[in-house]
Amino acid sequence: MTHSNTQALFLERWAEIDDLTAASELLGWDQETYMPAKGQTGRGKVLATLAGLHHAKLTSPELRDALDACADEAEPGSDLDAQMREARRRVERASRIPGELARRRAEAQSAGLAAWQEARKAKDFQLFAKELGVLVDLTREAAGHLAPLVASGKPFDALLDEYEPGASEAELAPLFASLRAELSPLVKGVAESGVRVDESPAQGRFPEERQLAFGRRVAEQMGFDFDAGRLDLAAHPFCSGFNPRDVRLTWRWQEDDFRPALFGIMHEAGHGLYEQGLPAEWERTPIGTAVSLGVHESQSRLWENLVGRSRSFWEWALPVFHEHFPDSRDVTVDALYPALHTVQPTFIRVEADEATYNLHICVRFEVERALFAGEIEVADLPAAWDDAYEELLGIRPADVAEGVLQDIHWSMGAFGYFPTYTLGNLINAQLFNKAREELGDLDAMFRAGELQPLLGWLRDKVHRHGSRYRAAELIEQTTGRALSPDDFLDYVRATTESVYGVRV
Amino acid sequence: MTHSNTQALFLERWAEIDDLTAASELLGWDQETYMPAKGQTGRGKVLATLAGLHHAKLTSPELRDALDACADEAEPGSDLDAQMREARRRVERASRIPGELARRRAEAQSAGLAAWQEARKAKDFQLFAKELGVLVDLTREAAGHLAPLVASGKPFDALLDEYEPGASEAELAPLFASLRAELSPLVKGVAESGVRVDESPAQGRFPEERQLAFGRRVAEQMGFDFDAGRLDLAAHPFCSGFNPRDVRLTWRWQEDDFRPALFGIMHEAGHGLYEQGLPAEWERTPIGTAVSLGVHESQSRLWENLVGRSRSFWEWALPVFHEHFPDSRDVTVDALYPALHTVQPTFIRVEADEATYNLHICVRFEVERALFAGEIEVADLPAAWDDAYEELLGIRPADVAEGVLQDIHWSMGAFGYFPTYTLGNLINAQLFNKAREELGDLDAMFRAGELQPLLGWLRDKVHRHGSRYRAAELIEQTTGRALSPDDFLDYVRATTESVYGVRV
Repeated sequence: MTHSNTQALFLERWAEIDDLTAASELLGWDQETYMPAKGQTGRGKVLATLAGLHHAKLTSPELRDALDACADEAEPGSDLDAQMREARRRVERASRIPGELARRRAEAQSAGLAAWQEARKAKDFQLFAKELGVLVDLTREAAGHLAPLVASGKPFDALLDEYEPGASEAELAPLFASLRAELSPLVKGVAESGVRVDESPAQGRFPEERQLAFGRRVAEQMGFDFDAGRLDLAAHPFCSGFNPRDVRLTWRWQEDDFRPALFGIMHEAGHGLYEQGLPAEWERTPIGTAVSLGVHESQSRLWENLVGRSRSFWEWALPVFHEHFPDSRDVTVDALYPALHTVQPTFIRVEADEATYNLHICVRFEVERALFAGEIEVADLPAAWDDAYEELLGIRPADVAEGVLQDIHWSMGAFGYFPTYTLGNLINAQLFNKAREELGDLDAMFRAGELQPLLGWLRDKVHRHGSRYRAAELIEQTTGRALSPDDFLDYVRATTESVYGVRV
Repeated sequence: MTHSNTQALFLERWAEIDDLTAASELLGWDQETYMPAKGQTGRGKVLATLAGLHHAKLTSPELRDALDACADEAEPGSDLDAQMREARRRVERASRIPGELARRRAEAQSAGLAAWQEARKAKDFQLFAKELGVLVDLTREAAGHLAPLVASGKPFDALLDEYEPGASEAELAPLFASLRAELSPLVKGVAESGVRVDESPAQGRFPEERQLAFGRRVAEQMGFDFDAGRLDLAAHPFCSGFNPRDVRLTWRWQEDDFRPALFGIMHEAGHGLYEQGLPAEWERTPIGTAVSLGVHESQSRLWENLVGRSRSFWEWALPVFHEHFPDSRDVTVDALYPALHTVQPTFIRVEADEATYNLHICVRFEVERALFAGEIEVADLPAAWDDAYEELLGIRPADVAEGVLQDIHWSMGAFGYFPTYTLGNLINAQLFNKAREELGDLDAMFRAGELQPLLGWLRDKVHRHGSRYRAAELIEQTTGRALSPDDFLDYVRATTESVYGVRV
């Protein structure tokens, strides 16, 4: 790549900002993996300082000047135009947040995380209520500053836009309504079918080191490059990509059931493949990052569910599974398959099945929407949460640990994040159907352990574009149509029918 | 602590700078422990950006103004006076290095580290010569800028002063001359004695996880707080303290000999205790750090050698050792003791014994001194190194891996660092003798596993003072006299006599 001097200056300033992000992300990764217990306070301060510097750089007159100087050179539709669109978007969002507010939010996030951990352990919402109140107040304050930047002018849309540029309540509400309308009867139908899945093929004694070895083996088969990444234990699995050559996955495990670890690893490796596949030539530039969290989640969900829970994948994986777990050598694909597609209302989102998962997100979407519309306050959250679970899933949490305190997100100040999980589910099904259409018999490939054609397709259609296009554009240009819940619902209906004999 | 507004402003600005240091140190720790192989390039860029920001903050008019505003409030001898002395020292050093030079040095360090690793593996100095040349040139350039800040006005003293504030070639040269004069005949006498130490009590099969457990057990006995620290594998053991509640030790091990791991861990834990003992009330302030690298090394050496290789410590440790290594259950303190005090000229500094160790440092002091006096160039280094080994230790390296490429320091741009190792050896003996004088029968305590009185004494005399005093001041006020090589030489002569029957 050659750039004009003005472009070079803009990109140089941006690279510095990107480096600060990478540093913060490494500190965050360490916080969740290896940091000693007493390190929390000091880490919070360092992260707050880095956030302050990041904010200062992003809103500096020097960056603004460099951007303005490039304006004449950016032809509409060019790479530079996309660079400037992304840069301006982030500069404008940051500029509207006063530096002092940014710093207070960073500090509140650190305090929030610690309080949430305590409260969850003690199953006592009060231990987190004050910190959560501060986080909500600061987020409302921030959303107020940002609202003028989104089409609707609504604060909640400004929050959604942070994680999914261009998303809005008006656009998401009908998606959630239709998922709710389709999935509730499905879940009810399963309950009424009287069919109970035998989960024993997925159960037994699975030692940690063998689960790790099996998970790594599968991630390697997917194409995850362990010379450019890692896999470590953490309480809550996540993926952190500092650059395409340093991508960190985390996992957790359960001794009596191999599914949480394996599907967790496939999920995070799906995120990781996206990060490793981002375009090297746009590294440290505004469009060198993933396009949105929804698209990110589509990658993780695609590998976890559409590949990892498919019959054809297991025809390849089963012998490898047997090698790692000789006690399970009698398990067959037919016996295992239903246990990969159980449908049952449960309390914990991260353990939810494919059919109920989006109902968990419906709850969160409703509750957050109401919170930022001022319809409810922090003190109302536990009851609002429990009521929504009763209404949508027909079950009521026994305590806040399996209720409103289960997710880490709010404690980190991430409001408006949850809908991206559902977007990911919808996008992944639509992408996967298109891949099947273009690549031919994916199942035959999976049976042979050939996952590279699919990865290659995703690299070509999604990864290599970074944030060159907006999510909606990318989906439309790849699949030929706008995002809809149809492909996902078709998939869930089909798997549910094959396991439970229920069609709704 | 309450501060005036002007003091608060100065300390607030300083805290930000300290946070940038902590972030860089965590990135450095990760680089040596968990970073995937391909992460190197990206990491170098992030570290360079952080170094640039650190430099910008340290040399900013805002900090200078905040310092100037405090000038009237600082009474001579007060804490604030010490804060300002340390702050000004670092501001002045940083201000004399142009930002662009600081950035180029950070980049050259990353490139240097990678090249050095390659060259050492290939035993080919040429693979590192170019990068080392760049590092030396940039360091000479920097030393030229810094020279006016030191009393002598000499560039080499400006380098020494970075690691050991106030140290000078003129002051170090006689120390090294006297060590050389005493230690060479001692080493020669041992060789002529014909006594060969039986090292078998320290040898056998020591599995990694048992060595780790034993090392951790000993570090805990020393008082290292594992809720405020960690111990991880690394190619080159080091200690990194981000704040007193997050201190990272690293270790390496050898299956057939327990000594490298154990004494490595005791050494790093000695550093770690200093970091954990730094005053909480001065955290993120100029005097909240260790006073100098020489004093730091005195802490590590004290625990590694004066405690860890003592007969009385092993009277406590041996049963614990037997528990961890049942195959060595016949080993006695009498049998083991000589193997803890072998004297033999070898090539590798980090494996050197107590008597020869400082001769290794003599070589480096001589070679660096000549390099920065312009008497030799980078291309001359391998020969100069080998010649010096032949002269001082009577042995000549067979290749550069056991010669001039053995140390990581130069590849990280650290010139003038080595003498602090010898200072540490001298300081630790002088401190230890004073502790014995004040605490009474240390050996009786060690025999009972009571290491806390010694730690308490070090906390009181050294750790809690941070950089409140200069190293020379601290040593004089604690031991009642200026630093001399006498205590150290007495110790080495005594142990050597008890093992080899040789007195020089």
